[in-house]
Amino acid sequence: MGKRIGVMLAGCGVFDGSEIHEAVLTLLAIAREGAEAVCMAPNVDQFHVLNHLTQEEMSGPRNVLVESARIARGEIEDLKDVSAKDLDALILPGGFGAAKNLSDFAIKGPDAKVQADVKRLLVEMNQAKKPIGAICIAPATLTRALADIAPEVTIGNDVGTAAAIETMGGKHRNCGVSEIWVDEANRLVSTPAYMLGEGIADVAEGIEKLVKKIMAMC
Amino acid sequence: MGKRIGVMLAGCGVFDGSEIHEAVLTLLAIAREGAEAVCMAPNVDQFHVLNHLTQEEMSGPRNVLVESARIARGEIEDLKDVSAKDLDALILPGGFGAAKNLSDFAIKGPDAKVQADVKRLLVEMNQAKKPIGAICIAPATLTRALADIAPEVTIGNDVGTAAAIETMGGKHRNCGVSEIWVDEANRLVSTPAYMLGEGIADVAEGIEKLVKKIMAMC
Repeated sequence: MGKRIGVMLAGCGVFDGSEIHEAVLTLLAIAREGAEAVCMAPNVDQFHVLNHLTQEEMSGPRNVLVESARIARGEIEDLKDVSAKDLDALILPGGFGAAKNLSDFAIKGPDAKVQADVKRLLVEMNQAKKPIGAICIAPATLTRALADIAPEVTIGNDVGTAAAIETMGGKHRNCGVSEIWVDEANRLVSTPAYMLGEGIADVAEGIEKLVKKIMAMC
Repeated sequence: MGKRIGVMLAGCGVFDGSEIHEAVLTLLAIAREGAEAVCMAPNVDQFHVLNHLTQEEMSGPRNVLVESARIARGEIEDLKDVSAKDLDALILPGGFGAAKNLSDFAIKGPDAKVQADVKRLLVEMNQAKKPIGAICIAPATLTRALADIAPEVTIGNDVGTAAAIETMGGKHRNCGVSEIWVDEANRLVSTPAYMLGEGIADVAEGIEKLVKKIMAMC
């Protein structure tokens, strides 16, 4: 039996849910490492629903768990039923959903509130010294949830987001799209992915490195 | 300027749209070959909307182009505006949407009707001798659209679907998930992907081979 790597999803689509490429590339890298992905998402309504063609708001609601199930091909757990003892590591792909549905960082910045079960599982994982990976904008939500440990993370080089991470008690480090930042003390790994707006091949390189590092830490 | 490879999407999610992993793996393989992906989808309502957690029908409608835009991060063309002269090759990922929205093969089997612009572009590509790739269940829609040329394709080894392909005038060849079937005469390449129900790493292997072969043919 391989290691069980949690993948916390936040809907299905970059503007209101999980960034689909980042989520799928995470699942691919986990499989290629011989591990098992355990997809999960909170059973709550999305903050909103955006038309991904026009970026205009559409009528909703859509449920985060139900829409995340599209990425997971139906094989997904309700986040409330998952605890750290079920997992060897946990990875959060990005997309605005990671900062609209897992927390409200995209709306409230450093004053963000983290969704209760998202915070619970992040704290549990950290207390169990199990590694956590965060991709794209997800390190902002991670930092808000684990501010007490002063997470050292990257979201690329966006000055405003980096400043918000520092305001929340984290430390931000600039990093290229195909690279990772490792906080060895706190057992955290992050990579900028589409926060740097590069193409899918560059994003894949960073995510592969993140998953390899997470596997080596657990 | 690299080659332009069309990717015809059919919504966003395996049960009612494009299979998300297959679509993303296609985009990744195209980028890694140094080519440009041109995503497109028909601007029509989905056949239906399925809850991917329960597989029950949900209230709709959802639009195929709008939902496909989630996979394409908003960079997608209305299929009606795309013609063969815009592309060097065309690839159809699978998922039920390829047989519910691009045609109604999933409902009507060999009597399926192919959506008008899907058929137009497939015929144009074939007449221009530009290669076409089809993944998972998409070869069934391809066969219905191009029955006149007797396409030789694979959907894996499902006996019923293979028989339907033969009824429509195609030739079916069994093939493993990490392999491709090439119809050199008609310039078609197919791979079974999730029709064989294996994991994402196996599916990725077949799709990478398909994209490499398509690149070599165009």
